[in-house]
Amino acid sequence: MSVKYFNGEFVKDSISIDPNDRGYQFGDGIYEVIRVYDGKLFTGIEHFERLLRSAAEIQIKLEQTVDDYMAICERLVAENYIQNGNIYVQVTRGAAVRNHLFPESSEPVTFIYTYDSERPVQGMKEGVKVITTDDIRWLRCDIKSLNLLGNVLNKQKAKEAGGTEAIQLREGIVTEGTSSNAYIVKEGAIYTHPANNLILNGITRQVIKTCAAEMGIPFIEQSFDKDALFAADEIFISSTSIEVTPVNQVDDQPFAVGPVTQKLQQAFEQKISAL
Amino acid sequence: MSVKYFNGEFVKDSISIDPNDRGYQFGDGIYEVIRVYDGKLFTGIEHFERLLRSAAEIQIKLEQTVDDYMAICERLVAENYIQNGNIYVQVTRGAAVRNHLFPESSEPVTFIYTYDSERPVQGMKEGVKVITTDDIRWLRCDIKSLNLLGNVLNKQKAKEAGGTEAIQLREGIVTEGTSSNAYIVKEGAIYTHPANNLILNGITRQVIKTCAAEMGIPFIEQSFDKDALFAADEIFISSTSIEVTPVNQVDDQPFAVGPVTQKLQQAFEQKISAL
Repeated sequence: MSVKYFNGEFVKDSISIDPNDRGYQFGDGIYEVIRVYDGKLFTGIEHFERLLRSAAEIQIKLEQTVDDYMAICERLVAENYIQNGNIYVQVTRGAAVRNHLFPESSEPVTFIYTYDSERPVQGMKEGVKVITTDDIRWLRCDIKSLNLLGNVLNKQKAKEAGGTEAIQLREGIVTEGTSSNAYIVKEGAIYTHPANNLILNGITRQVIKTCAAEMGIPFIEQSFDKDALFAADEIFISSTSIEVTPVNQVDDQPFAVGPVTQKLQQAFEQKISAL
Repeated sequence: MSVKYFNGEFVKDSISIDPNDRGYQFGDGIYEVIRVYDGKLFTGIEHFERLLRSAAEIQIKLEQTVDDYMAICERLVAENYIQNGNIYVQVTRGAAVRNHLFPESSEPVTFIYTYDSERPVQGMKEGVKVITTDDIRWLRCDIKSLNLLGNVLNKQKAKEAGGTEAIQLREGIVTEGTSSNAYIVKEGAIYTHPANNLILNGITRQVIKTCAAEMGIPFIEQSFDKDALFAADEIFISSTSIEVTPVNQVDDQPFAVGPVTQKLQQAFEQKISAL
């Protein structure tokens, strides 16, 4: 049984959660998923900076620093012999008698575990099918919270339509996938939704932005509609797990895996190699 | 220690939740709160019918019927000697390796407990202060789900402004409170948001609708804006816990507790007495 981190302890035993944990009754918590390549954390600092931001936005007071989290994760990765895998980190406001209001005092509950996971090379090479659907989520998608039911329902809808992801539209505008950011390429430039309250500013999105800048590819943070999506030269999605993944079909319309997407994949690969 | 119901068993011991319960990682579950007056469930059947509807909307398959839930709750109320109190009922999709997609197989996790709670007579008599704020929740507020972070943040905001509830506005339109429905009275008629995807169709709201019909008071399910809110003759909010509670202040503007609200309170009282 692998080692996990739970509330200040490294444990091998199974963990039990208090049913009054506000994560369980209100989704009152936040999380991150961090990629491990060759036993090393990729953009770990950026992920923990975002975790601290999410916590601050919903007023969960954390004592740990980015360095503290990094040290915990590096120990878990080492003790569990993770070469290629993921780290899941979740923090809730803690347990208290049920009441919507923040409790007068509650200790945040932190739960971190690792697992092996290979890179999804087939999808990265051939592309994946996606569907379009209405974005039904709340208006603070910039917070990486545990309120994920809208994402869950839309991802499930994609699966039932034979796809792997749903590109969501709010009032006709493409926001993002259910667990990924979404991009189009048009005449050599990359377009993606601005990093405001309607999307999560993906860490992979930020790496892609850097890669694009380094290669001189315009990276335009500007919203676009469904027509622009279907008129794109290339479409791709990104996340910690799927990296840069081309889209080869949206609803019934096929798309080719294009050169800009492939250049970004190569640049991303170099970032991994440079770890 | 009181008796609780957890996954088919009546237990006195403390309950522990699997950290992989989807309720904990996705808020992937639903709930109800049911009032007990004089040892009897008030509108229990209506609450469980809504629970089954919520479950169906997010495709959680429940084996229990309304009668099953009623029997469980009646036993808990009796064994815990609850005279005036509440029953909290929560069902999640169950535990599975983390993945947004519904698991191939998972057993729903049901958790039911009771607690004593007096009626909030002071607020019902004198009224309560509320604030107005933006409705940031998702677009399926008709499902009574565990994705409650938007409600939590707005309720907390109300508390920090010296109020007890936040009346939420979406694009300028009053939807509802964070844990209550909202109503205005204008020229003798009651107005409230239609029961569509933007609000929860409260069981108390439905009782009020019946009371209004019985008393010949127009009950108009029609949305209204912030100006109409501030121009109201009376304002009240309702929920299982607060029943019919007048609003005596919205932001900085005072409101009187009015005759229509009081008539509804009397009619509601009769429904309780008739139990």
